[in-house]
Amino acid sequence: MLTALKGNIIEALTPDTLGIHPHSYLVLEDGRVVGIYPVLPDALGSASVTDYGDALILQSFADMHLHGPQYEFMGTGMDRPLLQWLEAYAFPTEARYADPAYAREKYRILARDLLQNGTTQVCMFSSLHADSTLILMEELEKAGVTGYVGKVNMDRNAPPYLCETTEESKKETLRWLDECKRFTLVKPILTPRFAPSCTDELLTFLGKLKAERNLPVQSHLSENLGEIALVGQLFPDCPQYWEVYDKYGLFDSKTLMAHCVHSDARERAAIAMRGVHPVHCASSNNSLMSGISPVADMLREEQQVCLGSDVSGGTTLSMLHTMANSISASKDRGSLQQDASQALSIEQAYYMATSAGKVFLGLKPGFSEGELLHAVVLDDTHLPKLPNITLRERLLRAAYRLDDRHIRAVYSEGIRRL
Amino acid sequence: MLTALKGNIIEALTPDTLGIHPHSYLVLEDGRVVGIYPVLPDALGSASVTDYGDALILQSFADMHLHGPQYEFMGTGMDRPLLQWLEAYAFPTEARYADPAYAREKYRILARDLLQNGTTQVCMFSSLHADSTLILMEELEKAGVTGYVGKVNMDRNAPPYLCETTEESKKETLRWLDECKRFTLVKPILTPRFAPSCTDELLTFLGKLKAERNLPVQSHLSENLGEIALVGQLFPDCPQYWEVYDKYGLFDSKTLMAHCVHSDARERAAIAMRGVHPVHCASSNNSLMSGISPVADMLREEQQVCLGSDVSGGTTLSMLHTMANSISASKDRGSLQQDASQALSIEQAYYMATSAGKVFLGLKPGFSEGELLHAVVLDDTHLPKLPNITLRERLLRAAYRLDDRHIRAVYSEGIRRL
Repeated sequence: MLTALKGNIIEALTPDTLGIHPHSYLVLEDGRVVGIYPVLPDALGSASVTDYGDALILQSFADMHLHGPQYEFMGTGMDRPLLQWLEAYAFPTEARYADPAYAREKYRILARDLLQNGTTQVCMFSSLHADSTLILMEELEKAGVTGYVGKVNMDRNAPPYLCETTEESKKETLRWLDECKRFTLVKPILTPRFAPSCTDELLTFLGKLKAERNLPVQSHLSENLGEIALVGQLFPDCPQYWEVYDKYGLFDSKTLMAHCVHSDARERAAIAMRGVHPVHCASSNNSLMSGISPVADMLREEQQVCLGSDVSGGTTLSMLHTMANSISASKDRGSLQQDASQALSIEQAYYMATSAGKVFLGLKPGFSEGELLHAVVLDDTHLPKLPNITLRERLLRAAYRLDDRHIRAVYSEGIRRL
Repeated sequence: MLTALKGNIIEALTPDTLGIHPHSYLVLEDGRVVGIYPVLPDALGSASVTDYGDALILQSFADMHLHGPQYEFMGTGMDRPLLQWLEAYAFPTEARYADPAYAREKYRILARDLLQNGTTQVCMFSSLHADSTLILMEELEKAGVTGYVGKVNMDRNAPPYLCETTEESKKETLRWLDECKRFTLVKPILTPRFAPSCTDELLTFLGKLKAERNLPVQSHLSENLGEIALVGQLFPDCPQYWEVYDKYGLFDSKTLMAHCVHSDARERAAIAMRGVHPVHCASSNNSLMSGISPVADMLREEQQVCLGSDVSGGTTLSMLHTMANSISASKDRGSLQQDASQALSIEQAYYMATSAGKVFLGLKPGFSEGELLHAVVLDDTHLPKLPNITLRERLLRAAYRLDDRHIRAVYSEGIRRL
């Protein structure tokens, strides 16, 4: 069946290039992209057109780092650095997800709110509870959110009420992976919480599992100076943080590493060489005062940087706001260092918030031919109609001024879900 | 007539002290504050109570620096530094306000949006057009927004289409001041745009006018390094920027100075000694990459720092978001300088967004006895009900997560306006 969306179509083709199609037709066949046309070609003339008028048709968002069980306390507890914040807020909240009924209630809200914010692709941490992780995957799939979810592995340096034995962690991970076979939109990703929370034995197990089953991996890297010092103590044989993951075979092109705030030239070279995907989390890096990642430099080094809301070190689920926060953080870095080249462009922010995540998920940038549609229709027509304003400027303005109430439609996997 | 608002009342008593009154009564007599009581006293038992349940009753916001005619392009043009940005965006837009009908249409929207965002007190720049400035004052007064508005003075270093002769500037300022007598809620404030846009003769005139009529003054100070260099060239007899204003009698306790990003110890000492009120504009300082003000240091020096949205160098009219942006900017400064003492607290942000502005307007901090009520009712009851969450934490969360759609009521000058 041929359908088409009509409106101002903007796609993120490369970190520096927008594909801009004013008042054009995005044509689909059975939900898969056929192409974008300024005028509907005769051969596609039978398409049933949904006309969104002067609204913006954007790629929907890919939030490549967030913690499902932390959403409920978003915006509170923003006055401590990472390791104390984990103890005071994150761990006690995550412990409640031992209760599947509790998890069901909270994860249903999270899945709904993601979709309402135009996020249709995620890479998410659950808690260490296998059953609640399966519930999170169910709720995402029901809402039409796709991507990866990971049961967290954590067998040391965690409070007793939120710690697995090594044996439990292995067993539950295998059980969880077996149960994941029933999902079609949401797939499992191995998730050692971060190096300090996993024993050598557990990391060895996860590395083998990754190799045997060809699984992707997500974790944290060089977020905070205290954390880096702790890794140095716990893994004295590894000169740098990344080498812990690398030692166990958890550091390659199927790996997402959140933060990378303090990665120096050597660590960044390793990230680039291995094709690891760093996830920039501007909001939480700010809230927890972790620092400001040199994202503009990382993009110049052709690193495949994605964006993450990092709920709930981050204070917003909105990837529009996450784009704006990323630009703001880069400008703060630039002005304090008197180096304007640190400032991110809207092209870069939009690419990182959409296509960069798609690439990690095995898709192509932009509205790529043959792929199921992931799109969001953003209505900015209540804002002033400025003379000569470009679509590029409207995209930047949208990042600063719009929110979930301005999202008119969300498409995921070729289907309109909102 | 006795009335009362019931809810969770939070007032900003000092930059470091919240007055927190859970489930209490804010009692008014003819719109003026009588007091705050946990239980309604017998003598006030006849008060007609509006019960806002578990919502937050906050002071409404005082936005102490914004440019009325720039609101329409908020969120665009964020890719140039100050002086180029003025040329490309601000000046061409302001020129349109020569047309009173255009001004009427745009200022009505601005006044409505201010109130919807809970801002009931402002200090605002208009354009150089006297008639449109009067229209702005009318529209604010109609909406119930109080404070100061200034006709801009600008007789040099402006484009020909937006520049007055010195004579015109004087004559129009006097005419405008005469016409201002009809307003009750909105008063005039002298507004030399900034030192570079005024000749010595005009500054001399404004200084005399201020002294004769005991008028307040607003302008810009040390926002951007390029601007500071320009001031040095134009006023070679003044060792520092502030000394230009001081030389003409425009730098005292009835003066607001926006930005003060690059004020060094000597300039800050002058600000403190003269009792000048600096206005911190976190959003525009970020957008235009001007720098990050050392606000925490300024508060330690007991400077009377207020907050400004600085529309439209700033990207939001919401003072809730301006509070959050101020905290974020201070944390970026703190983490890049590895100095945690730079981080602003929610107490400081809320005080600067409310009471600090009231003090400039001649009022007292907090919900002060005998003053007409300025308040906003903020409904956060849709957010998760966390165990043991304090009202202080709910205030911080509100800054990050709420917006105009969560404002249930706005009171200005003792009257409910929304």
